[in-house]
Amino acid sequence: MKKQFYTYIQNLQDTITSKLEELDGGATFVEDLWKRPEGGGGRTRVISEGNVFEKGGVNISEVEGELPQVLRDNLEVKEGHFFACGLSLVLHPKNPMVPTVHANWRYFEMYDEHGELVTQWFGGGQDLTPYYLFDEDAVHFHTICRNACDKHGADFYSMYKKRCDTYFWNAHRNEARGIGGLFFDYLKETEEFSLQDRYDFVIEIGNSFLESYLPIVAKRKELSFTDTQREWQEVRRGRYVEFNLVHDKGTLFGLKTNGRIESILMSLPPKVQWHYCHEPAEDSEEARLVSVLKEPKNWLSF
Amino acid sequence: MKKQFYTYIQNLQDTITSKLEELDGGATFVEDLWKRPEGGGGRTRVISEGNVFEKGGVNISEVEGELPQVLRDNLEVKEGHFFACGLSLVLHPKNPMVPTVHANWRYFEMYDEHGELVTQWFGGGQDLTPYYLFDEDAVHFHTICRNACDKHGADFYSMYKKRCDTYFWNAHRNEARGIGGLFFDYLKETEEFSLQDRYDFVIEIGNSFLESYLPIVAKRKELSFTDTQREWQEVRRGRYVEFNLVHDKGTLFGLKTNGRIESILMSLPPKVQWHYCHEPAEDSEEARLVSVLKEPKNWLSF
Repeated sequence: MKKQFYTYIQNLQDTITSKLEELDGGATFVEDLWKRPEGGGGRTRVISEGNVFEKGGVNISEVEGELPQVLRDNLEVKEGHFFACGLSLVLHPKNPMVPTVHANWRYFEMYDEHGELVTQWFGGGQDLTPYYLFDEDAVHFHTICRNACDKHGADFYSMYKKRCDTYFWNAHRNEARGIGGLFFDYLKETEEFSLQDRYDFVIEIGNSFLESYLPIVAKRKELSFTDTQREWQEVRRGRYVEFNLVHDKGTLFGLKTNGRIESILMSLPPKVQWHYCHEPAEDSEEARLVSVLKEPKNWLSF
Repeated sequence: MKKQFYTYIQNLQDTITSKLEELDGGATFVEDLWKRPEGGGGRTRVISEGNVFEKGGVNISEVEGELPQVLRDNLEVKEGHFFACGLSLVLHPKNPMVPTVHANWRYFEMYDEHGELVTQWFGGGQDLTPYYLFDEDAVHFHTICRNACDKHGADFYSMYKKRCDTYFWNAHRNEARGIGGLFFDYLKETEEFSLQDRYDFVIEIGNSFLESYLPIVAKRKELSFTDTQREWQEVRRGRYVEFNLVHDKGTLFGLKTNGRIESILMSLPPKVQWHYCHEPAEDSEEARLVSVLKEPKNWLSF
């Protein structure tokens, strides 16, 4: 399964980066291959100052080693080794009418002190962070997510959509980071689902990513915008930074376990602003976005 | 002591904001009075888009209530009430030749379930974060810190200077946030020092703040700078954000205990950039700064 999934994400990285380059039409991804002293490594691909994408990364990595303390505490195990691999992507478009997107699909194995496999699972998801909210874009994104889920489990979409809203919650601001999508973790083998079923589900989601996001980018990338709208985008990007540095378990895990800092923090937006008590004008498009983020919506009628 | 110290920081806030306005010559501080539903409140004063200061805040607050869970865990107590008051300031200058400064002086009381005072202490410090390093500025700042310390304890400067270097350490980057200053906490009454001695020490430090910082600002504020130097400042400000959101106990405590978000996050710089793998050129002034941050220096010969 390790090999099967890593081969899958290697190919997916190629597909995604080549389609994004095509859509951008300006910049191309720059590749960094890196090794982790404790074992494993990765292939980081970043794009910057493109026609469409101001900054972004589509990274894969495969790491193994002794289970770090923080994970031992979380999993309530005393010792062991782990293997983890995954693809992580974040894209920050230049135009504030185009949403930021984040996705991650990962596979994890844990071994006991004798090197025996103890458990294994998949995790991941994808979510959208608009600066200006086009309802039809939100509906499109969630429709693709639901269609991919429905092929594998009747309750998958509603379950993982809710988890996404719960996870990407900027608790100190009492608002969501974005308009959600899917979030799942610890997808283990059960009586109902084999590990191969889990794999099939995760790659279905991974394969649906481009269809969920690219049409939105294509539709919005040529829209005009004002300096004030651009400022709003940079202020909202501040909330993105706050979530990733204060709440995101993946980021904090990476920072505390000697992860590759530049690959982890490629998720941070290129230009960001913080103003004291910045409030959108009443009844503005900016205020409408915030009100939706305060109370996550069901975008699809069931 | 509560009243004595709160009166002191009220007056100190007035002195500091009026001197900063004078030096800025463009913007003035805007005041926000706020109340905390659980008890207490504060007086937030922020400045923005001045001639010298792009963003800054000089805030005082006085809060009381039930001891929050996170503090109970830290202090290893089961229940109790607390009182805390302090002044916090952060100033982000526009010109990259002028360093950012942070300072905080605070007083804390803790009571048992019967409302009896259990313990009380002072904490605080001040530290400097340059974007371009003028050695003489670092020496000036540390000299004022040392002179203030020396009047109260022979080992205070060396002790609190070291604590400052240890505290403002961006562990995930393996570098200091800035070039340090002073950091002290849990200054309780001991056989050697009465609570009044502690108070006298803390106000000596507070009173020395303007002398430690203003001459540096006055000397550097008219220096010319390039777009590339400004970009460097915005990139380095990213490290400031990383420290405050990932490592700073005060910020995280505030975010997790329903503090006033806008007063806490006024510490974040106004405009910030993150680039993938941004590295200063070899033998540049930027590289020299980073090398000093990697290995905190003793700025004064003892």
